[in-house]
Amino acid sequence: MPERGHYDAPTIEPILDEAIVCHIGFVVDDQPYVIPSQHVRDGDRLLLHGSSASRPMRLLAAGARCCVTVTLLDGLVCARSAYNHSANYRSVAVLGMPTLIDDADEKLAALALFTNRIIPNRWADLRPPTATELKATTIVWLPLNEASAKVRSGPPGDPDEDVAEVDCWAGVIPARTTFGPPLADPRLRAGIEITDTIAGYSRA
Amino acid sequence: MPERGHYDAPTIEPILDEAIVCHIGFVVDDQPYVIPSQHVRDGDRLLLHGSSASRPMRLLAAGARCCVTVTLLDGLVCARSAYNHSANYRSVAVLGMPTLIDDADEKLAALALFTNRIIPNRWADLRPPTATELKATTIVWLPLNEASAKVRSGPPGDPDEDVAEVDCWAGVIPARTTFGPPLADPRLRAGIEITDTIAGYSRA
Repeated sequence: MPERGHYDAPTIEPILDEAIVCHIGFVVDDQPYVIPSQHVRDGDRLLLHGSSASRPMRLLAAGARCCVTVTLLDGLVCARSAYNHSANYRSVAVLGMPTLIDDADEKLAALALFTNRIIPNRWADLRPPTATELKATTIVWLPLNEASAKVRSGPPGDPDEDVAEVDCWAGVIPARTTFGPPLADPRLRAGIEITDTIAGYSRA
Repeated sequence: MPERGHYDAPTIEPILDEAIVCHIGFVVDDQPYVIPSQHVRDGDRLLLHGSSASRPMRLLAAGARCCVTVTLLDGLVCARSAYNHSANYRSVAVLGMPTLIDDADEKLAALALFTNRIIPNRWADLRPPTATELKATTIVWLPLNEASAKVRSGPPGDPDEDVAEVDCWAGVIPARTTFGPPLADPRLRAGIEITDTIAGYSRA
Protein backbone atom coordinates (compact mmCIF):
# COMPACT_ATOMS: atom_id res chain seq x y z
CA MET A 1 0.00 0.00 0.00
CA PRO A 2 1.42 3.42 -0.91
CA GLU A 3 -0.40 5.08 2.01
CA ARG A 4 -0.48 3.75 5.57
CA GLY A 5 -0.08 4.53 9.21
CA HIS A 6 3.16 4.50 11.19
CA TYR A 7 3.54 4.62 14.95
CA ASP A 8 7.33 4.45 15.42
CA ALA A 9 9.52 7.31 16.65
CA PRO A 10 12.03 7.03 13.74
CA THR A 11 9.18 7.85 11.33
CA ILE A 12 7.34 10.38 13.49
CA GLU A 13 10.19 12.49 14.90
CA PRO A 14 11.86 13.66 11.66
CA ILE A 15 8.48 14.78 10.28
CA LEU A 16 7.80 16.88 13.39
CA ASP A 17 11.34 18.27 13.24
CA GLU A 18 11.22 19.23 9.56
CA ALA A 19 7.79 20.91 9.65
CA ILE A 20 7.81 24.63 10.45
CA VAL A 21 4.04 25.05 10.76
CA CYS A 22 1.63 22.91 12.77
CA HIS A 23 -2.16 23.05 12.93
CA ILE A 24 -3.73 22.87 16.40
CA GLY A 25 -7.29 21.58 16.69
CA PHE A 26 -9.41 22.27 19.76
CA VAL A 27 -13.12 22.41 20.57
CA VAL A 28 -15.31 25.17 21.99
CA ASP A 29 -19.03 24.41 22.47
CA ASP A 30 -18.93 21.48 20.02
CA GLN A 31 -17.33 23.63 17.32
CA PRO A 32 -13.83 22.48 16.29
CA TYR A 33 -11.24 25.15 15.50
CA VAL A 34 -7.99 24.64 13.63
CA ILE A 35 -5.29 27.30 13.91
CA PRO A 36 -1.77 27.50 12.51
CA SER A 37 1.07 27.67 15.01
CA GLN A 38 4.65 26.56 15.55
CA HIS A 39 5.86 23.65 17.63
CA VAL A 40 9.11 22.13 18.78
CA ARG A 41 9.87 18.54 19.72
CA ASP A 42 11.77 18.05 22.97
CA GLY A 43 12.59 14.32 23.12
CA ASP A 44 9.27 12.53 23.49
CA ARG A 45 7.27 15.72 24.11
CA LEU A 46 5.79 18.25 21.70
CA LEU A 47 5.90 21.84 22.94
CA LEU A 48 3.43 24.55 21.86
CA HIS A 49 3.48 28.24 22.69
CA GLY A 50 1.44 31.36 22.19
CA SER A 51 0.07 34.49 23.73
CA SER A 52 -1.24 33.94 27.26
CA ALA A 53 -4.15 36.24 26.37
CA SER A 54 -5.34 34.14 23.40
CA ARG A 55 -8.30 31.81 23.70
CA PRO A 56 -6.50 28.79 22.25
CA MET A 57 -3.61 29.08 24.69
CA ARG A 58 -5.95 29.57 27.65
CA LEU A 59 -7.77 26.38 26.64
CA LEU A 60 -4.54 24.44 26.15
CA ALA A 61 -3.13 25.72 29.44
CA ALA A 62 -6.25 24.35 31.12
CA GLY A 63 -5.57 20.89 29.64
CA ALA A 64 -8.21 20.87 26.87
CA ARG A 65 -8.12 17.89 24.51
CA CYS A 66 -6.38 18.83 21.30
CA CYS A 67 -4.90 17.44 18.12
CA VAL A 68 -1.72 18.86 16.62
CA THR A 69 -1.08 17.93 12.99
CA VAL A 70 1.89 18.72 10.75
CA THR A 71 1.98 17.97 7.03
CA LEU A 72 4.90 18.08 4.61
CA LEU A 73 3.85 18.13 0.95
CA ASP A 74 6.36 16.11 -1.09
CA GLY A 75 4.70 15.95 -4.48
CA LEU A 76 1.66 16.07 -6.72
CA VAL A 77 0.80 12.59 -7.99
CA CYS A 78 -0.54 12.79 -11.55
CA ALA A 79 -2.33 9.53 -12.27
CA ARG A 80 -4.33 8.39 -15.30
CA SER A 81 -7.69 8.78 -13.55
CA ALA A 82 -9.03 11.39 -11.12
CA TYR A 83 -9.59 8.54 -8.67
CA ASN A 84 -5.85 7.82 -8.45
CA HIS A 85 -4.72 11.45 -8.45
CA SER A 86 -3.12 12.03 -5.08
CA ALA A 87 -0.38 13.81 -3.18
CA ASN A 88 2.88 12.52 -1.76
CA TYR A 89 3.18 13.74 1.79
CA ARG A 90 4.34 13.00 5.32
CA SER A 91 1.96 13.88 8.11
CA VAL A 92 1.91 13.42 11.90
CA ALA A 93 -1.05 13.87 14.24
CA VAL A 94 -0.53 14.14 18.00
CA LEU A 95 -3.56 13.70 20.25
CA GLY A 96 -3.63 14.56 23.92
CA MET A 97 -4.31 16.85 26.82
CA PRO A 98 -1.55 19.44 27.30
CA THR A 99 0.38 20.16 30.47
CA LEU A 100 1.32 23.76 31.34
CA ILE A 101 4.97 24.67 31.81
CA ASP A 102 4.90 27.14 34.67
CA ASP A 103 8.48 27.29 35.97
CA ALA A 104 10.39 30.34 34.66
CA ASP A 105 13.63 28.43 33.98
CA GLU A 106 11.76 25.70 32.14
CA LYS A 107 9.94 28.34 30.11
CA LEU A 108 13.25 29.98 29.16
CA ALA A 109 14.70 26.62 28.13
CA ALA A 110 11.60 25.91 26.04
CA LEU A 111 11.77 29.30 24.30
CA ALA A 112 15.42 28.63 23.44
CA LEU A 113 14.32 25.34 21.85
CA PHE A 114 11.61 27.07 19.79
CA THR A 115 14.06 29.72 18.60
CA ASN A 116 17.04 27.49 17.83
CA ARG A 117 14.90 24.92 16.05
CA ILE A 118 13.94 27.47 13.39
CA ILE A 119 17.29 29.32 13.25
CA PRO A 120 20.23 27.32 14.69
CA ASN A 121 22.09 29.12 17.51
CA ARG A 122 19.82 32.15 17.27
CA TRP A 123 18.92 32.27 20.98
CA ALA A 124 22.41 33.36 22.09
CA ASP A 125 22.27 36.41 19.78
CA LEU A 126 18.92 37.72 21.02
CA ARG A 127 18.01 40.18 23.73
CA PRO A 128 16.89 37.92 26.63
CA PRO A 129 13.15 37.81 27.46
CA THR A 130 11.85 40.21 30.08
CA ALA A 131 9.72 39.02 32.99
CA THR A 132 6.69 40.64 31.32
CA GLU A 133 7.33 38.82 28.04
CA LEU A 134 7.71 35.51 29.86
CA LYS A 135 4.41 36.07 31.62
CA ALA A 136 2.70 36.99 28.36
CA THR A 137 3.82 33.69 26.80
CA THR A 138 2.08 30.41 27.57
CA ILE A 139 3.96 27.17 26.90
CA VAL A 140 2.41 23.70 27.12
CA TRP A 141 3.54 20.21 26.15
CA LEU A 142 1.92 17.04 24.84
CA PRO A 143 3.39 13.56 25.18
CA LEU A 144 4.11 11.80 21.88
CA ASN A 145 2.60 8.49 23.05
CA GLU A 146 -0.55 9.22 21.03
CA ALA A 147 1.22 10.27 17.84
CA SER A 148 0.77 8.65 14.46
CA ALA A 149 2.18 9.31 11.01
CA LYS A 150 0.69 8.92 7.56
CA VAL A 151 3.01 8.78 4.59
CA ARG A 152 2.41 8.46 0.86
CA SER A 153 5.34 8.26 -1.52
CA GLY A 154 6.19 6.97 -4.95
CA PRO A 155 4.58 6.98 -8.39
CA PRO A 156 0.84 6.87 -9.23
CA GLY A 157 -1.07 3.78 -8.14
CA ASP A 158 -2.89 3.24 -11.44
CA PRO A 159 -4.15 -0.28 -12.19
CA ASP A 160 -2.35 -2.06 -15.05
CA GLU A 161 -5.25 -1.60 -17.45
CA ASP A 162 -5.12 2.19 -17.08
CA VAL A 163 -1.35 2.12 -17.64
CA ALA A 164 -1.93 0.15 -20.84
CA GLU A 165 -4.94 2.05 -22.18
CA VAL A 166 -4.85 5.67 -21.05
CA ASP A 167 -2.64 7.91 -23.14
CA CYS A 168 -1.93 10.79 -20.75
CA TRP A 169 1.39 11.53 -19.08
CA ALA A 170 1.63 10.21 -15.52
CA GLY A 171 4.17 10.75 -12.79
CA VAL A 172 4.98 12.98 -9.84
CA ILE A 173 5.72 16.71 -9.60
CA PRO A 174 8.06 17.00 -6.57
CA ALA A 175 7.18 19.77 -4.10
CA ARG A 176 9.03 21.28 -1.16
CA THR A 177 9.37 24.41 0.94
CA THR A 178 12.28 26.56 -0.18
CA PHE A 179 13.81 29.74 1.20
CA GLY A 180 14.87 32.85 -0.67
CA PRO A 181 17.71 35.29 0.02
CA PRO A 182 17.10 36.96 3.43
CA LEU A 183 15.67 40.49 3.41
CA ALA A 184 17.30 42.75 6.00
CA ASP A 185 15.02 44.74 8.28
CA PRO A 186 14.89 48.33 6.87
CA ARG A 187 15.74 49.46 10.42
CA LEU A 188 18.87 47.26 10.65
CA ARG A 189 21.79 49.41 11.82
CA ALA A 190 24.89 49.61 9.60
CA GLY A 191 27.72 47.21 10.35
CA ILE A 192 25.64 44.31 11.66
CA GLU A 193 26.61 41.16 9.77
CA ILE A 194 24.23 38.39 8.79
CA THR A 195 25.08 34.96 10.25
CA ASP A 196 25.86 31.96 8.02
CA THR A 197 22.85 30.08 9.45
CA ILE A 198 20.55 32.80 8.08
CA ALA A 199 22.44 33.72 4.88
CA GLY A 200 22.43 30.11 3.70
CA TYR A 201 19.19 29.04 5.32
CA SER A 202 17.79 25.62 4.48
CA ARG A 203 16.09 22.77 6.33
CA ALA A 204 17.55 19.94 4.23
CA MET B 1 -0.72 45.98 13.28
CA PRO B 2 1.28 43.40 11.35
CA GLU B 3 -1.18 40.60 12.24
CA ARG B 4 -4.94 40.87 12.04
CA GLY B 5 -8.15 39.31 10.85
CA HIS B 6 -9.77 39.80 7.47
CA TYR B 7 -13.29 38.84 6.43
CA ASP B 8 -13.44 39.99 2.81
CA ALA B 9 -13.56 37.70 -0.22
CA PRO B 10 -10.66 39.47 -2.04
CA THR B 11 -8.38 38.49 0.85
CA ILE B 12 -9.84 35.05 1.57
CA GLU B 13 -10.31 33.60 -1.92
CA PRO B 14 -6.74 33.86 -3.28
CA ILE B 15 -5.40 32.18 -0.12
CA LEU B 16 -7.79 29.25 -0.54
CA ASP B 17 -6.92 29.05 -4.24
CA GLU B 18 -3.15 29.09 -3.76
CA ALA B 19 -3.03 26.51 -0.95
CA ILE B 20 -2.69 22.89 -2.07
CA VAL B 21 -3.18 21.30 1.35
CA CYS B 22 -5.93 22.04 3.86
CA HIS B 23 -6.37 20.74 7.40
CA ILE B 24 -9.86 19.54 8.36
CA GLY B 25 -10.83 19.59 12.03
CA PHE B 26 -13.73 17.52 13.36
CA VAL B 27 -14.78 16.09 16.72
CA VAL B 28 -15.48 12.53 17.85
CA ASP B 29 -16.49 11.98 21.50
CA ASP B 30 -15.03 15.36 22.59
CA GLN B 31 -11.68 14.57 20.94
CA PRO B 32 -10.74 16.92 18.09
CA TYR B 33 -8.97 15.43 15.07
CA VAL B 34 -7.07 17.37 12.41
CA ILE B 35 -6.31 15.64 9.12
CA PRO B 36 -4.61 16.87 5.94
CA SER B 37 -6.70 16.92 2.78
CA GLN B 38 -7.23 18.86 -0.43
CA HIS B 39 -9.97 21.34 -1.16
CA VAL B 40 -11.23 23.43 -4.04
CA ARG B 41 -13.13 26.70 -3.98
CA ASP B 42 -16.21 26.89 -6.22
CA GLY B 43 -17.39 30.49 -6.04
CA ASP B 44 -18.56 31.06 -2.49
CA ARG B 45 -18.37 27.37 -1.51
CA LEU B 46 -15.45 25.23 -0.37
CA LEU B 47 -15.54 21.64 -1.63
CA LEU B 48 -13.94 18.70 0.20
CA HIS B 49 -13.64 15.12 -0.94
CA GLY B 50 -12.39 11.78 0.27
CA SER B 51 -13.06 8.09 0.51
CA SER B 52 -16.70 7.28 1.31
CA ALA B 53 -15.41 4.53 3.63
CA SER B 54 -13.32 6.88 5.79
CA ARG B 55 -14.54 8.07 9.18
CA PRO B 56 -13.90 11.76 8.48
CA MET B 57 -15.89 11.71 5.24
CA ARG B 58 -18.76 9.80 6.84
CA LEU B 59 -18.90 12.45 9.57
CA LEU B 60 -18.72 15.32 7.10
CA ALA B 61 -21.36 13.70 4.87
CA ALA B 62 -23.63 13.60 7.93
CA GLY B 63 -23.18 17.36 8.43
CA ALA B 64 -20.79 17.32 11.40
CA ARG B 65 -19.43 20.69 12.48
CA CYS B 66 -15.93 21.18 11.11
CA CYS B 67 -13.19 23.73 10.60
CA VAL B 68 -11.08 23.76 7.46
CA THR B 69 -7.86 25.74 7.68
CA VAL B 70 -5.24 26.48 5.04
CA THR B 71 -1.92 28.17 5.76
CA LEU B 72 0.68 29.57 3.37
CA LEU B 73 4.08 30.17 4.97
CA ASP B 74 5.64 33.28 3.45
CA GLY B 75 8.68 33.83 5.63
CA LEU B 76 10.58 33.40 8.88
CA VAL B 77 10.67 36.68 10.80
CA CYS B 78 14.01 37.04 12.61
CA ALA B 79 13.56 39.68 15.30
CA ARG B 80 15.93 40.93 17.98
CA SER B 81 14.10 39.12 20.79
CA ALA B 82 12.46 35.69 20.98
CA TYR B 83 9.23 37.51 21.85
CA ASN B 84 9.13 39.21 18.45
CA HIS B 85 10.30 36.21 16.41
CA SER B 86 7.41 35.27 14.18
CA ALA B 87 6.37 33.95 10.79
CA ASN B 88 4.91 35.74 7.80
CA TYR B 89 1.91 33.78 6.63
CA ARG B 90 -1.55 33.90 5.09
CA SER B 91 -4.15 31.64 6.66
CA VAL B 92 -7.89 31.07 6.21
CA ALA B 93 -10.24 29.16 8.51
CA VAL B 94 -13.69 28.10 7.34
CA LEU B 95 -16.23 27.01 9.95
CA GLY B 96 -19.46 25.24 9.18
CA MET B 97 -21.59 22.17 8.74
CA PRO B 98 -21.05 20.50 5.37
CA THR B 99 -23.69 19.58 2.81
CA LEU B 100 -23.37 16.35 0.85
CA ILE B 101 -23.22 16.46 -2.95
CA ASP B 102 -25.22 13.42 -4.00
CA ASP B 103 -26.12 14.01 -7.65
CA ALA B 104 -23.78 12.13 -10.04
CA ASP B 105 -23.43 15.02 -12.51
CA GLU B 106 -22.67 17.46 -9.69
CA LYS B 107 -20.09 15.01 -8.33
CA LEU B 108 -18.41 14.74 -11.74
CA ALA B 109 -18.33 18.53 -12.08
CA ALA B 110 -16.80 18.80 -8.60
CA LEU B 111 -14.13 16.19 -9.35
CA ALA B 112 -13.21 18.11 -12.50
CA LEU B 113 -12.76 21.23 -10.35
CA PHE B 114 -10.51 19.37 -7.88
CA THR B 115 -8.39 17.96 -10.70
CA ASN B 116 -8.06 21.10 -12.82
CA ARG B 117 -7.33 23.29 -9.82
CA ILE B 118 -4.11 21.37 -9.13
CA ILE B 119 -3.15 20.69 -12.78
CA PRO B 120 -4.86 23.03 -15.29
CA ASN B 121 -6.84 21.20 -17.99
CA ARG B 122 -5.91 17.79 -16.57
CA TRP B 123 -9.49 16.47 -16.38
CA ALA B 124 -9.93 16.20 -20.17
CA ASP B 125 -6.83 13.95 -20.44
CA LEU B 126 -7.92 11.43 -17.79
CA ARG B 127 -9.85 8.20 -18.04
CA PRO B 128 -13.37 9.18 -16.83
CA PRO B 129 -14.50 7.97 -13.39
CA THR B 130 -16.40 4.69 -13.22
CA ALA B 131 -19.70 4.38 -11.36
CA THR B 132 -17.88 2.42 -8.63
CA GLU B 133 -15.25 5.14 -8.22
CA LEU B 134 -17.92 7.84 -8.03
CA LYS B 135 -19.74 5.87 -5.32
CA ALA B 136 -16.48 5.36 -3.41
CA THR B 137 -15.88 9.14 -3.35
CA THR B 138 -17.74 11.44 -0.99
CA ILE B 139 -17.91 15.15 -1.82
CA VAL B 140 -19.26 17.82 0.52
CA TRP B 141 -19.30 21.61 0.52
CA LEU B 142 -19.11 24.37 3.10
CA PRO B 143 -20.36 27.93 2.57
CA LEU B 144 -17.69 30.62 2.88
CA ASN B 145 -19.90 32.89 4.99
CA GLU B 146 -18.02 31.82 8.13
CA ALA B 147 -14.52 32.21 6.69
CA SER B 148 -11.84 34.44 8.11
CA ALA B 149 -8.24 35.15 7.17
CA LYS B 150 -5.21 35.95 9.27
CA VAL B 151 -2.23 37.56 7.59
CA ARG B 152 1.17 38.65 8.87
CA SER B 153 3.63 40.31 6.53
CA GLY B 154 6.59 42.63 6.63
CA PRO B 155 9.72 43.06 8.74
CA PRO B 156 10.17 42.28 12.45
CA GLY B 157 8.04 44.26 14.91
CA ASP B 158 10.86 45.07 17.32
CA PRO B 159 10.43 48.14 19.54
CA ASP B 160 12.78 51.04 18.79
CA GLU B 161 14.96 50.40 21.82
CA ASP B 162 15.73 46.85 20.63
CA VAL B 163 16.58 48.19 17.17
CA ALA B 164 18.98 50.66 18.78
CA GLU B 165 20.56 48.38 21.36
CA VAL B 166 20.56 44.77 20.16
CA ASP B 167 23.41 43.91 17.82
CA CYS B 168 22.04 40.87 16.00
CA TRP B 169 20.95 40.71 12.36
CA ALA B 170 17.20 41.08 11.89
CA GLY B 171 14.98 40.62 8.88
CA VAL B 172 12.92 38.04 7.03
CA ILE B 173 13.86 34.77 5.32
CA PRO B 174 11.26 34.41 2.52
CA ALA B 175 9.65 30.96 2.22
CA ARG B 176 7.47 29.36 -0.42
CA THR B 177 6.44 26.03 -1.91
CA THR B 178 8.40 25.21 -5.04
CA PHE B 179 8.15 22.39 -7.56
CA GLY B 180 10.94 20.31 -9.06
CA PRO B 181 11.25 18.77 -12.51
CA PRO B 182 8.45 16.17 -12.95
CA LEU B 183 9.40 12.50 -12.50
CA ALA B 184 7.74 10.24 -15.07
CA ASP B 185 5.97 7.13 -13.80
CA PRO B 186 8.37 4.18 -14.37
CA ARG B 187 5.40 2.47 -16.06
CA LEU B 188 4.78 5.36 -18.52
CA ARG B 189 4.58 3.96 -22.05
CA ALA B 190 7.00 5.27 -24.67
CA GLY B 191 5.81 8.10 -26.87
CA ILE B 192 3.51 9.81 -24.35
CA GLU B 193 4.46 13.48 -24.14
CA ILE B 194 4.38 15.59 -21.00
CA THR B 195 2.05 18.63 -21.14
CA ASP B 196 3.34 22.17 -20.73
CA THR B 197 1.19 22.64 -17.64
CA ILE B 198 3.08 19.82 -15.92
CA ALA B 199 6.57 20.35 -17.42
CA GLY B 200 6.64 23.98 -16.27
CA TYR B 201 4.49 23.57 -13.18
CA SER B 202 4.16 26.51 -10.80
CA ARG B 203 1.42 28.14 -8.75
CA ALA B 204 2.69 31.70 -9.06
